[in-house]
Amino acid sequence: MNTAEYIVKKLEELGINDFFGVPGDYNFNLIYAVENNPSMNWIGCTNELNAGYAADGYARIKGYGAFITTYGTGELSAINAIAGSMAENIPVVHIVGLPSSKSIKNKTLLHHNLQDVNYNAFTEAYKAVTATTALLTKDNAKIEIDKAIKILVKEKKPIYIAVPLDIAEMGISDKDSFNDWHSNENTLTEVCSIIVQKIANAEKPLIVGDALIKRFDATIEYKEFCEKSGIPVSNFLMGKGLIDKNAKNYIGTYCAEFQNSDVEKYFNETDCLITVGAICSDINAFGFNDSLKIKNQIAIYGTHTYIDSTRYDDIKMSDVLEKVTKLIETKEYVIEKSAPILIQKESENIPITSDFLYTKLKSFIKANDIIVGETGTVQYGLAQIDCPSDVNIESQLLWSSTGWATAAALGISIAKPASRVIVISGDGAHLMTGMEIGTIIKNGLKPIFIIINNKGYSTERYLSKQPQNNMNDIISINYAKFARIFDGDVWATSVTSEEDFDKALKVTQIMNKLCYIEVKLAEMDIAELAQKFLTKTKDNSDYHKQGVLPKEKNIVLTNYAGSSGYETVVHQAFSEIDKLFKAEDINE
Amino acid sequence: MNTAEYIVKKLEELGINDFFGVPGDYNFNLIYAVENNPSMNWIGCTNELNAGYAADGYARIKGYGAFITTYGTGELSAINAIAGSMAENIPVVHIVGLPSSKSIKNKTLLHHNLQDVNYNAFTEAYKAVTATTALLTKDNAKIEIDKAIKILVKEKKPIYIAVPLDIAEMGISDKDSFNDWHSNENTLTEVCSIIVQKIANAEKPLIVGDALIKRFDATIEYKEFCEKSGIPVSNFLMGKGLIDKNAKNYIGTYCAEFQNSDVEKYFNETDCLITVGAICSDINAFGFNDSLKIKNQIAIYGTHTYIDSTRYDDIKMSDVLEKVTKLIETKEYVIEKSAPILIQKESENIPITSDFLYTKLKSFIKANDIIVGETGTVQYGLAQIDCPSDVNIESQLLWSSTGWATAAALGISIAKPASRVIVISGDGAHLMTGMEIGTIIKNGLKPIFIIINNKGYSTERYLSKQPQNNMNDIISINYAKFARIFDGDVWATSVTSEEDFDKALKVTQIMNKLCYIEVKLAEMDIAELAQKFLTKTKDNSDYHKQGVLPKEKNIVLTNYAGSSGYETVVHQAFSEIDKLFKAEDINE
Repeated sequence: MNTAEYIVKKLEELGINDFFGVPGDYNFNLIYAVENNPSMNWIGCTNELNAGYAADGYARIKGYGAFITTYGTGELSAINAIAGSMAENIPVVHIVGLPSSKSIKNKTLLHHNLQDVNYNAFTEAYKAVTATTALLTKDNAKIEIDKAIKILVKEKKPIYIAVPLDIAEMGISDKDSFNDWHSNENTLTEVCSIIVQKIANAEKPLIVGDALIKRFDATIEYKEFCEKSGIPVSNFLMGKGLIDKNAKNYIGTYCAEFQNSDVEKYFNETDCLITVGAICSDINAFGFNDSLKIKNQIAIYGTHTYIDSTRYDDIKMSDVLEKVTKLIETKEYVIEKSAPILIQKESENIPITSDFLYTKLKSFIKANDIIVGETGTVQYGLAQIDCPSDVNIESQLLWSSTGWATAAALGISIAKPASRVIVISGDGAHLMTGMEIGTIIKNGLKPIFIIINNKGYSTERYLSKQPQNNMNDIISINYAKFARIFDGDVWATSVTSEEDFDKALKVTQIMNKLCYIEVKLAEMDIAELAQKFLTKTKDNSDYHKQGVLPKEKNIVLTNYAGSSGYETVVHQAFSEIDKLFKAEDINE
Repeated sequence: MNTAEYIVKKLEELGINDFFGVPGDYNFNLIYAVENNPSMNWIGCTNELNAGYAADGYARIKGYGAFITTYGTGELSAINAIAGSMAENIPVVHIVGLPSSKSIKNKTLLHHNLQDVNYNAFTEAYKAVTATTALLTKDNAKIEIDKAIKILVKEKKPIYIAVPLDIAEMGISDKDSFNDWHSNENTLTEVCSIIVQKIANAEKPLIVGDALIKRFDATIEYKEFCEKSGIPVSNFLMGKGLIDKNAKNYIGTYCAEFQNSDVEKYFNETDCLITVGAICSDINAFGFNDSLKIKNQIAIYGTHTYIDSTRYDDIKMSDVLEKVTKLIETKEYVIEKSAPILIQKESENIPITSDFLYTKLKSFIKANDIIVGETGTVQYGLAQIDCPSDVNIESQLLWSSTGWATAAALGISIAKPASRVIVISGDGAHLMTGMEIGTIIKNGLKPIFIIINNKGYSTERYLSKQPQNNMNDIISINYAKFARIFDGDVWATSVTSEEDFDKALKVTQIMNKLCYIEVKLAEMDIAELAQKFLTKTKDNSDYHKQGVLPKEKNIVLTNYAGSSGYETVVHQAFSEIDKLFKAEDINE
């Protein structure tokens, strides 16, 4: 077994059966190791950034993902995808083929190099956006691979493995197999008993679930904890869909003051906040952050838990949830549910609006669907929908890399071919990575694409103080025609009316092929929640001018998730986006 | 004037009239500064990597280029483009909009961040691939901008300027204007007199021109030097087109033993090698490197010159060439010219071959055309063509980032709208960045695209030892249909016969619109020179197996271009690519 085959084997043990990537003349033997392994598929992508997004999507569903690029050009094209996986705890393995050890030692000026040759430069660049980087040598190959994969498994963050040509073909022993890590039993016992005690003492506890529950494979334990405890349950945007909307104690998604004021009330009144896997960023959490003013605050993360300001390390999220569930007693809490936001209505032969679009999607989405939501206004539309149970909504709200959804849908579809995958993307984002539809078709996959064409970058249009300028206008294409340039069976249409959209959704249910629906909306028509949030965000610039910030905006931000420890910064929510419009006060 | 406006003004002084980029919510005010400046155009691209390629293409023609991205996602998507500009001395300014200074100071968890917030991480990543990075603050903004632009101008390498939201709007003084740098007169005099002496003492001097002549704006001085000196002139691949093929002392492009054996003879026999702006990489120079065995070796670079092993700094390439030309006496040297490689022939109604394609292009290319050649087999096809005078061939052979040509063509077309721009690209590369055609159309540009469809990555197919595997197969699309998805006037066709290709080229001459020709070739049909080079490269693996390296491959590599000084490494040419196929000897 050579090094390349060893890496492939180790990743097979983690459940990976598909590698994404693009061939290049320094990575052939890595790809051979994939292609020659009967339980592996090679999925060649149209470019490296998309391959990285696809591996990220795959990992969100299957637990781990991997992709292969070539030295320099290839690896750097993908660095944004890996940074996104880093930001959002997606365990992706990026394997890069390098020139031979000899060329590296001799600083030979081969192509894909800077004139001032430095073979460490790109590995260095990757240090900031991965949990670990390994540049394999004759002596360290096995040790470094094993070490890197251990970090991947524990931290659920991307790793980078650079493999010189000769090292990829070097013989390697495969005796040790992958081992998971285990919680520290003493810490686990201590932490769980404190949590149970705190909950017992609280009058108004509140559970807030978020994306990292999925990333650390604790969904089952989380659901059991919510069910048995009876505590009211909410979530941030990326945590949507974890709990059935009909569950007795599920109160809805937190959208600050912009939607579900009942939910906001719970946040304001709780005396014991329990966040699970929360990413408290501006978009995902609507600027909300675990306030230090709340006593009895508990934040459970993948490898550690905070109780008030104390950090407990080396305890798994799933273990904590499981043990707490075992110890806790079921209680009855007062549950006030918000009314559904979108009310079903019949389609008419009138121009379609975003309001109708999301209303219709609400009834179209079924259990076991996977929704892939692009960054931007789509997220707020999805936030308005109360999903049926077991719907998996995948989005990338912290890193927010425009174009992610279309390429990630490749990985997601491959990871779970039995599920119906629905991709919802704006036009500008879709154009960034749209060519990957060819790879989706080539691999016989059949997701549904809903592309919202409102001729530009809508979020930016709402935030812009110079709306007359053309910077947010994008190129104009015929989307349905685009979907048909690929060699494969595709059903594509373009709709402008409610009725046609209704019909198109029905058609997708009888088509056994990739379906692609362009929905033409008016330029400034975006989801109501998006309108409210973006308009308020923009209007806040006026508060700035007058030197008055609304009182409710003075909240405390705590970023628990970082590995650098417990950081507290006072933050005026939204002030950041305000700056987009007015920063004159700073110039004075 | 605010900081953003100041940056725009400084770049206007360098001749920039167009900014490329993608809007994002941290860079609005940077783009406003472009849009509100009446002598500036904003060219929004479909993604950031393409914007980077477009700015690179623009800089190759206009001298300098610039593009704007947003923090995190945007800037990282473009890092490969900037690394390419770094590798090939293309002075591009990458301006990145960051969150406000306050958020940076407070490590606020805004979107486009890692959970463990570090606002320096991405600037750090850029350090390796730019001549300088500047993260602007209230106190250093003007100093850092001026310093960075000075480096841009002197070193002709990309720079990175990160501008927090508030700093972009901060007032700034614009009193100093851009100043070019000047050669050190004493060094210049010393160096030029040595060079003239060495040439006078030589029997068989040889001039080799390359891409960096264009990068350091020394084309006129170079031509005058070649003309007056009478010395035989050759070039590496990226230096093609600098000298008229009919010039008395022009002997042809160096292609090692694969083409023009007369040229190789000059390289073997010279007793005074004068390289000007040479990039001695594996592809560009066919593995050739200035051999230390040659006495009287002179290497003239943008800011410095080597004579034998001594480096002289702070002298401009153009100044050195101008002064040497003034001092040198014209001499008559024996000139043996190679016969043209491709012979014109009539088109027939038979399947088109790559041989016919390049033969036909030879007569199609006219003076003042700009040819944009994609990385891969296209380069070898272009190497076979002896161009008319004043044809500018732009390619990226050191960095060799697949997909560059299509997006760079946007920048090149904008930089010189009066020139006919002909883009020649393989299918796999074109798919990586093809959506940028929309931006080309949106901006009313009319390049000619010739897309070679042979259903895969051809270079890789020739190099692969497992040709039965599918890794080099790409997605299949209808290219002519693709060119017609955009909203704009396009003439697109797909050809399979010699006659149709001939006709299509004729049609482009009467069409006043973007023309797009898909040429369908057989899977393994590539330019003859490419075949020879790639086959030999692959075959070399056999030498390895037997432990025998052909004698002529033991040459000496010198990388002059690096700023780290004079490095010498003994190199077995092509051994690198050999490793792709056999590295068993290392595993022993």
